[in-house]
Amino acid sequence: MSNTRTTSGSSKPHELGLDLLVELKGSRVRAGLTEALREAIRSGRLPAGSRMPASRMLATDLGLARSTITECYGELIAEGWLTARQGSGTHVANVAQQAIATPSDPSRAGGEIEGLAPGAADFADFPRQQWLAAARRVLASAPYSAFGYGDPGGNLHLRTALAGYLARVRGVSAGPEQIIICSGFHHGLGLMARALRARGAESVATESYGLGLYRDVLTETGLRIPPLAVDERGARTDELDGTVDAALLTPAHQFPTGAALSPDRRAHALRWAQRTGGLILEDDYDGEFRYDRAPVAALQGIDPDHVAYFGTASKSVAPALRVAWMVVPRRLVPAVLAAKGAVETVSVIDQLTLAEFIASGAFDRNVRLRRQNYRRRREQLTATLSDSSPAYRLIGMQAGLQAVIALPAGLESATLQAAASRGLIMSGLSEFRHPDADRAGEIDGLVVNFSAISDSAWPSTLSLLGSAIRANKLATR
Amino acid sequence: MSNTRTTSGSSKPHELGLDLLVELKGSRVRAGLTEALREAIRSGRLPAGSRMPASRMLATDLGLARSTITECYGELIAEGWLTARQGSGTHVANVAQQAIATPSDPSRAGGEIEGLAPGAADFADFPRQQWLAAARRVLASAPYSAFGYGDPGGNLHLRTALAGYLARVRGVSAGPEQIIICSGFHHGLGLMARALRARGAESVATESYGLGLYRDVLTETGLRIPPLAVDERGARTDELDGTVDAALLTPAHQFPTGAALSPDRRAHALRWAQRTGGLILEDDYDGEFRYDRAPVAALQGIDPDHVAYFGTASKSVAPALRVAWMVVPRRLVPAVLAAKGAVETVSVIDQLTLAEFIASGAFDRNVRLRRQNYRRRREQLTATLSDSSPAYRLIGMQAGLQAVIALPAGLESATLQAAASRGLIMSGLSEFRHPDADRAGEIDGLVVNFSAISDSAWPSTLSLLGSAIRANKLATR
Repeated sequence: MSNTRTTSGSSKPHELGLDLLVELKGSRVRAGLTEALREAIRSGRLPAGSRMPASRMLATDLGLARSTITECYGELIAEGWLTARQGSGTHVANVAQQAIATPSDPSRAGGEIEGLAPGAADFADFPRQQWLAAARRVLASAPYSAFGYGDPGGNLHLRTALAGYLARVRGVSAGPEQIIICSGFHHGLGLMARALRARGAESVATESYGLGLYRDVLTETGLRIPPLAVDERGARTDELDGTVDAALLTPAHQFPTGAALSPDRRAHALRWAQRTGGLILEDDYDGEFRYDRAPVAALQGIDPDHVAYFGTASKSVAPALRVAWMVVPRRLVPAVLAAKGAVETVSVIDQLTLAEFIASGAFDRNVRLRRQNYRRRREQLTATLSDSSPAYRLIGMQAGLQAVIALPAGLESATLQAAASRGLIMSGLSEFRHPDADRAGEIDGLVVNFSAISDSAWPSTLSLLGSAIRANKLATR
Repeated sequence: MSNTRTTSGSSKPHELGLDLLVELKGSRVRAGLTEALREAIRSGRLPAGSRMPASRMLATDLGLARSTITECYGELIAEGWLTARQGSGTHVANVAQQAIATPSDPSRAGGEIEGLAPGAADFADFPRQQWLAAARRVLASAPYSAFGYGDPGGNLHLRTALAGYLARVRGVSAGPEQIIICSGFHHGLGLMARALRARGAESVATESYGLGLYRDVLTETGLRIPPLAVDERGARTDELDGTVDAALLTPAHQFPTGAALSPDRRAHALRWAQRTGGLILEDDYDGEFRYDRAPVAALQGIDPDHVAYFGTASKSVAPALRVAWMVVPRRLVPAVLAAKGAVETVSVIDQLTLAEFIASGAFDRNVRLRRQNYRRRREQLTATLSDSSPAYRLIGMQAGLQAVIALPAGLESATLQAAASRGLIMSGLSEFRHPDADRAGEIDGLVVNFSAISDSAWPSTLSLLGSAIRANKLATR
């Protein structure tokens, strides 16, 4: 996959190509590619007039023979889907297109995450070539013993690489033995919940806005989850008291409202933990993605004994890896390991590959590229908003993979309906509200996950969003 | 990695080479390789006089430039570790060697699996090149959506590939929707235990010989595990009655005694399940590895409503993958999915790669090659035994990854000590005995996992084993 990016969505054909490929297997590679491109043109994902990638470039990206690409193009030209203009390459012909569909991830559980809904990283820019190169180096050099069952806490190479990376990038202070590998935040939170329960904990304060999936993990373990109000300075950690054993926070970038936990609230949280012996569960889900200034370091680095830190490869590499990490205070390591079980559950080969990916610098490069792309998308979102409805604004800080469009009170549901009628499935803030949260703190807003859309679909998605907002303004004026 | 194999251990240098490489990373590839070879010669893993692989061959195997290999050889020749003889290649010089150490897997949990102890597949013959090729095809062709969170039950491509493979090879009868992907038998058994507990089950009969790790999974879930006696015809399924809700069996190849469940006992088990509504948990851990005749099909195929089938990639590909599968009766699918959780935990990329590995035929080829190698090792083990102690014999059938050397009553512990004093860590049958098993059914024996040793270490391991058995005979004569 190419590392170059340009701002104009439709002029990036050879990255765009990667999104479109389906089921290229065995002897049917050319037929599969041809059908995928045909379907992409039919559905509008490849809009009329857009330039196709040069055959050499696409062949390199896909690891296919150049002749396969030229034959495929030839067939589509013969069928009228593509046109070849002398000197200016191959373009998508002006054929009738179906209504532009919002891309979605059909494999996603329950189908709840679609379109601009949060929870997904930009899958399309998974660093295929670099990941494969790291895997190749690992497989060439891994010793005999690397192919065994692994260490139940996680592979030492990965834990060591993460200790260095997290110290450098997030200010996390931990030895490799405190880092436990898990398959995702969902898995890690479940392990921690069981460890806390086993030690007698009864309740974990949870932010009044967050993913219900994670609240469920806690309640399924038998923990109570009293809500902690959230405002524009993050969670109200000044309200934490001795009635809760732990607090689940998103200090770097509140999910989904986008606030950063303010310095005084950070101090409140740490003092609460020190005073009561409570534990802060720091969900640093997108700590690498900050656009406006140097990121604020993790809380964990300030008080490693009172903070359990959670990070993930889902945003920085891909959710499909199912690799994440937790940094656990030393006294809790045995209980978390006991919860994880006697046998490793995370692929050792993937762990070694990720360690190599980090050590080689590919991880940092990949995060940097995504950061640029997401920042640009956020700017484009701001521009769309100011065109569609100058009174509306993005709330939350310049960071992360999602942004919130604040709406006048009572407009959330109508705007979501206007979007849905245009085929754009989005989430409103109400979807993330803690069921026991104080109604007084309610905010109306649209949650826009600008990382979940492929580069090719992004411009049309933005137009749909602008149109939904304009329509809604008119209807309610 | 080459697929060719020869029986004489020391003449297989270029496979041997793969076992020896450690930490070949970034710019230090040559230095790492040189140090790994130096260490291998020092420790005796590369014995004096053995022929080094041709540089071209090793370069191909490791994916390195040929010049890297020749420079490395040159350095070792200069240092006196290797000698180059005109016309006959490069050989290990006759330097002083340390005592030959038994290879072990230091990353293994608790360190309990070492030397010939069971639980490990032959890591050394992980099909590095073919696995990488499958990963490359998947990464080149996978659609956008493949890099998301995945389906919590497992990737549909893999489930479909497994449905076909298991029907063809093991006679398993199941639709993809009944196949649930897990990270290993340990994980899958835990999910099933929780599903059974949630439905009110209280006890699971377990064979009187088996891995304590798995008994622990059941008891940790709150299940009782009454023992079921094992003899030369497998588990005494004729003793199953209405007091247990399920029975954990290894019908194809009892672990570790090696018996096949006899036809009448298979019928007893199925009748018990049908009569009482009980569930058979069929652990088909090495069903692909049968040497004497066509394998007996899985019990599951006979009565899919009363059997949950468990298989794993740990023996056929590598434990490091952490991928396994369970085939669940339809009525139990929701409960097992609920136990697995709302978010997939197994790498989606690995699942897609395994699906491609199966579809391309590489899986079958790899199993076939290993079967040949293990059969040969079993024959060599038989020959060693007949040289060392003609009165001793292997029990269990011609199958699987481990064999048991039956010993005269009372000799097990002394023989294990004799082996340990030679640096060979092995397991005795007593290690696998159910704590509540009837003492009358006790067997003395050594469990030899002939798949856990690299090709290079196998001959010396066999000698040590022969020596331990001979010494023990003398001591107790």
